[in-house]
Amino acid sequence: MSRSPLRVGLIGSGFMGKAHAFGYGAAAKVFDLPFAVELHTLADATPDLAARAARELGFANSTADWRAMVASPEIDVVNITVPNALHKEMALAAIAAGKHVYCEKPLAPRARDAQEMTEAAEAAGVKTQVGFNYLCNPMLRLARDMIAGGELGQIVSYRGVHAEDYMADATSPWSFRHDPQGGGAFADIGSHALATAEFLLGPITRLLGDTVTVIPDRPDGTGGRRPVEVDDLGRAFVRFAGGASGSIEASWVAMGRKMQHDFEVYGTRGALLFTQERFNELHVYSADDAPGRRGFRRIEAAPDHPPYGRFCVAPGHQIGFNDLKAIEVAGFLDALAGQGPEPFGFRQGWRVQSLVEAVHASSKAQAWVDVA
Amino acid sequence: MSRSPLRVGLIGSGFMGKAHAFGYGAAAKVFDLPFAVELHTLADATPDLAARAARELGFANSTADWRAMVASPEIDVVNITVPNALHKEMALAAIAAGKHVYCEKPLAPRARDAQEMTEAAEAAGVKTQVGFNYLCNPMLRLARDMIAGGELGQIVSYRGVHAEDYMADATSPWSFRHDPQGGGAFADIGSHALATAEFLLGPITRLLGDTVTVIPDRPDGTGGRRPVEVDDLGRAFVRFAGGASGSIEASWVAMGRKMQHDFEVYGTRGALLFTQERFNELHVYSADDAPGRRGFRRIEAAPDHPPYGRFCVAPGHQIGFNDLKAIEVAGFLDALAGQGPEPFGFRQGWRVQSLVEAVHASSKAQAWVDVA
Amino acid sequence: MSRSPLRVGLIGSGFMGKAHAFGYGAAAKVFDLPFAVELHTLADATPDLAARAARELGFANSTADWRAMVASPEIDVVNITVPNALHKEMALAAIAAGKHVYCEKPLAPRARDAQEMTEAAEAAGVKTQVGFNYLCNPMLRLARDMIAGGELGQIVSYRGVHAEDYMADATSPWSFRHDPQGGGAFADIGSHALATAEFLLGPITRLLGDTVTVIPDRPDGTGGRRPVEVDDLGRAFVRFAGGASGSIEASWVAMGRKMQHDFEVYGTRGALLFTQERFNELHVYSADDAPGRRGFRRIEAAPDHPPYGRFCVAPGHQIGFNDLKAIEVAGFLDALAGQGPEPFGFRQGWRVQSLVEAVHASSKAQAWVDVA
Amino acid sequence: MSRSPLRVGLIGSGFMGKAHAFGYGAAAKVFDLPFAVELHTLADATPDLAARAARELGFANSTADWRAMVASPEIDVVNITVPNALHKEMALAAIAAGKHVYCEKPLAPRARDAQEMTEAAEAAGVKTQVGFNYLCNPMLRLARDMIAGGELGQIVSYRGVHAEDYMADATSPWSFRHDPQGGGAFADIGSHALATAEFLLGPITRLLGDTVTVIPDRPDGTGGRRPVEVDDLGRAFVRFAGGASGSIEASWVAMGRKMQHDFEVYGTRGALLFTQERFNELHVYSADDAPGRRGFRRIEAAPDHPPYGRFCVAPGHQIGFNDLKAIEVAGFLDALAGQGPEPFGFRQGWRVQSLVEAVHASSKAQAWVDVA
Repeated sequence: MSRSPLRVGLIGSGFMGKAHAFGYGAAAKVFDLPFAVELHTLADATPDLAARAARELGFANSTADWRAMVASPEIDVVNITVPNALHKEMALAAIAAGKHVYCEKPLAPRARDAQEMTEAAEAAGVKTQVGFNYLCNPMLRLARDMIAGGELGQIVSYRGVHAEDYMADATSPWSFRHDPQGGGAFADIGSHALATAEFLLGPITRLLGDTVTVIPDRPDGTGGRRPVEVDDLGRAFVRFAGGASGSIEASWVAMGRKMQHDFEVYGTRGALLFTQERFNELHVYSADDAPGRRGFRRIEAAPDHPPYGRFCVAPGHQIGFNDLKAIEVAGFLDALAGQGPEPFGFRQGWRVQSLVEAVHASSKAQAWVDVA
Repeated sequence: MSRSPLRVGLIGSGFMGKAHAFGYGAAAKVFDLPFAVELHTLADATPDLAARAARELGFANSTADWRAMVASPEIDVVNITVPNALHKEMALAAIAAGKHVYCEKPLAPRARDAQEMTEAAEAAGVKTQVGFNYLCNPMLRLARDMIAGGELGQIVSYRGVHAEDYMADATSPWSFRHDPQGGGAFADIGSHALATAEFLLGPITRLLGDTVTVIPDRPDGTGGRRPVEVDDLGRAFVRFAGGASGSIEASWVAMGRKMQHDFEVYGTRGALLFTQERFNELHVYSADDAPGRRGFRRIEAAPDHPPYGRFCVAPGHQIGFNDLKAIEVAGFLDALAGQGPEPFGFRQGWRVQSLVEAVHASSKAQAWVDVA
Repeated sequence: MSRSPLRVGLIGSGFMGKAHAFGYGAAAKVFDLPFAVELHTLADATPDLAARAARELGFANSTADWRAMVASPEIDVVNITVPNALHKEMALAAIAAGKHVYCEKPLAPRARDAQEMTEAAEAAGVKTQVGFNYLCNPMLRLARDMIAGGELGQIVSYRGVHAEDYMADATSPWSFRHDPQGGGAFADIGSHALATAEFLLGPITRLLGDTVTVIPDRPDGTGGRRPVEVDDLGRAFVRFAGGASGSIEASWVAMGRKMQHDFEVYGTRGALLFTQERFNELHVYSADDAPGRRGFRRIEAAPDHPPYGRFCVAPGHQIGFNDLKAIEVAGFLDALAGQGPEPFGFRQGWRVQSLVEAVHASSKAQAWVDVA
Repeated sequence: MSRSPLRVGLIGSGFMGKAHAFGYGAAAKVFDLPFAVELHTLADATPDLAARAARELGFANSTADWRAMVASPEIDVVNITVPNALHKEMALAAIAAGKHVYCEKPLAPRARDAQEMTEAAEAAGVKTQVGFNYLCNPMLRLARDMIAGGELGQIVSYRGVHAEDYMADATSPWSFRHDPQGGGAFADIGSHALATAEFLLGPITRLLGDTVTVIPDRPDGTGGRRPVEVDDLGRAFVRFAGGASGSIEASWVAMGRKMQHDFEVYGTRGALLFTQERFNELHVYSADDAPGRRGFRRIEAAPDHPPYGRFCVAPGHQIGFNDLKAIEVAGFLDALAGQGPEPFGFRQGWRVQSLVEAVHASSKAQAWVDVA
């Protein structure tokens, strides 16, 4: 590892900011990274906030001036973990300064903003990443490899769901997640279901959406109620370029569900079942098993399923949510070193945003739309 | 039990004929039926077939002339378990003779036939039953009662699936199930998913369908291939009169699935999960449980859940598929005795058939249709 | 089927009497039995009780004199479903009259009584059956066949449990099940765990018991308390003739458990997991699966697993507890016709009783005992 | 956080050495630790090995002289992650130098060594920790709190298992784990089952062991076979001071099991089920639930269950195995700061070792032994 260290500038210090800092630290411990990582500067709203967060998260410097930071020659990569309405301006500034950019999902409130960001990055030749960390799960990689390798035969059907209950309480207040510019259940978590579907089966070509607002207004924080114009839940029929049909569902009012990121894949020779509720497992059916001995097989994550073995040398020990972030970081660093493709770059983040918008547009038009 | 015995005439002696005969016998053993049941006459295609089946299934008489049987004054109720293209003619003849009719599902290949049968039965004042036996499960009754009793709050979302893999093999031959007149996955088993949805949540008012043919042709039995025009799988978005939205899915090419008759119900105070794969269980989440102690609760079928206790005096012993049929029979006999409503009469069978046709029509038109 | 019908005399009309009557009826419907079955006479404590039960359960005649019935030349087989303290006298009388005997479990309160019954039956040349119906499960037959066929390699370890909670309530009254002559958790349900263990792996040769009384006294029905001298739960280490070691556990105070009849079998090439809570499934691990694809496979009961197909023509439909009884009946009738061995005769019932007594004796002596 | 940083010296750089280094890093990220942690010096067998490991794991200095390191005034706490035969000498040297000691499990090959280490540490007034990290799981803390708080009533029965299959292959070579001085399945992983049992229910007072060698010899690495004298699996009956009885089982030849660290706890008002295979869940039964609504409830780890919320701000995201190590580290640092008791000190490590030896002694003597 003779290269210079990679100098990281982080904007934001909330939950995802912490997750990024943690991810860099964890990735360095478990992977043979192509770079040493230097947590160089943390930018936040005020000097005090920034200084405190820098101390807690292990950054050497702090600033309240994110513009100065992204422009500084001492920074190689900019991590953006602020609310998504701010992503575009920051990312464009970083790109203009020639920095690589690692941005939390969703990339931008609207697909056309994401497009602008993508085209700017590609024109500038910088590398990018959007944080779709469920895709970093070794069991998802296994699922994708089994599909691609033909172990299930030809894929004919798909069912994908992402459902939680964090907005099920009608007394929870109106927030930026309810903003018609980019908010709603499908944008917030349906995006995960869409990303997983394309990760596994390849491009969706057409879809038909159906989105619903369940709780029509929420407390506005000043004693009144503010109307909710975004979807609380939604569904879409989809067609994949590979020929399969499927459905995608999203809900943030699914009482009792904390992390129902599920999928079922049916092929002509086998099937896969997965739930994020038990994300160290993949259930596989093979029609090639002997008669009378067929059944869904519960495969537990093991060193056979890279990069699980980086975290635990023995099977069955299990990785956690934060480990998914470390895998995400490591994949980006490999891409920066030219050792692999960008795992999930701006172009893919833009793609997901386009699909979300297509679901909404289709739902409004009550008609199929092309998304090829 | 001072009434005369109920004299049963059965047309057909295949799997479902056997199930009916078995159901009468089992119902008599486990329930206090309002009638003694006399398995009077079995009608089949030839005298020999009928005689042999009568002997095996315990009928006193046999005949190759179903018309004579349904007209006979010695018969009180006619059971029809032949292929569904024949249901209408037989049922109308039985109704014309003033007999009660108990017909296997689907009631008829087309909704307008089912309508004609329904209206004839209602005009004649005879009682009717269609064999939707999954609905007879004590755990489904529990689910419906919990929903109706408000234990889950207001219902906001529903997901229903019926998926199996008995048509997943592309080399299995073209059969009557592939006939565009009433065949296909949605008619064959999607009908169960639709029936369960309305059983639990009440009427569907609108739907949007999406059906797909996966295997375009099948062996025709003479060395050639015959095109398949029906759906191998399909999906529908639905709206319920009670305000909830949902989805219904059917597939007979879901490799590995043997009996995925599943539903998920989400309300403002709780949720239910069910799978027919483990149909002696219902999983219930209640937001009223204490913080830190909430979770989906696996309720096992027990004497608390009628009529389970008729079969097993202790919890956890489990009923089987054939027991569902016995419950179905007992419910019909109660209705005949005026001790309860018809559990699932021709009108409801017609309703399901209408919904199936609406799914297909909607899919073809690529538009929502009213089904209120 | 040219033989004369088999004429059944039943003593007792409680839960198990009903189950026997039901079992004969169901067996006749689903199996090609070697005999027609005639439910000839039901004997109960008084003429009225017997007459009513005979009517309900479909017996042609009734009597309050069981001695006359077992001696009658019109009876071929005697079914005994009364409390177990009465089994011996009735069985010996039936055997003396040359009748086949089908007795509920446990065969007798003490092993030496069971031995006397066994030897009498064998001397008389009559056939016998004891009702260990969990063993009739197609999935248990599959498990046994897989073990015997070497699919798991050499068996090294076994864990068997039968736990329920029907005595967990300390306010439930003292009953015959608490009688030191043959009562207690290990006799009542541990016997099932022992029978299953030997059914799967063959003879136990040595064991070491540990039994415990949790609730020291119970209401005596007259306002006082009566001491409980039997075990509420117990455990045993075991050795099998085949070389494996294992453990057996029984409890009737396992709060929340309704039917935990579980086993785990570990061999050098694979493993099996089973729970009666989901008794239409068997979970199988094979070390011969490909690396990275290994896992416990959930096999669902199907026509591949005889005699499941007698009940349901398609996989996944599931059999219930009462169907196990029908299988038990059919096996006995085959044995009576000389078409197979007695599935679980008096000798095996005696064996189980001996093992239960060995557990208690070993627990008292705090020492291993031979049971070869 | 005004204190000086805690200066850590680590001996060993294998899997557990890495886990310790990782644990310090992760703990600092997710907890408000009472100290800053300085990874000061890493000691390994040669200067080269030590230097390379120090660089990889983030230690500032390295040495091949662990004695010098533990004696250095620049070290506050010594972490020992070498094979357990070396623990005693190193720990005693560190204690003699007044250092706190954090030692991997098992504390020492024999209980009397563990005792000597414990007494030395207590005499010196230094603080100690042994790495029983399964106990750090928030769901185990929840289980313990529910038991201690009386939510399950009085505990009557316990079943604990730790089974894996890493020694199931008879061709895997003889290793230090097979050394009769401290090796074997019960010492290696049965120790976890014993630790969990006492963590949840309090002290075991008596036990009766039964241990078995399944594979009598293993390749010795030179073409021959070396006899195995330790247990491949074992079981123990136990009694707890609180009155409950139970069993503990250990196996490293349980084919198919990767992490079966399970327990079942039965009380007079409820029950708990847990498996490390899904260690972000706890299943709870309460007899206080309404009739007809009772069942085992699947509680998912959430911020309600400290310290889960340190890792994930939302429920259902899940922690992984390495996060358990971070919790372990944080608990020790709190103890060093006087902010809490030692979570699992040398005295407890000695206790577990004593229990393991008692299992073996009892098995050999075929008699109960007191372990109060």
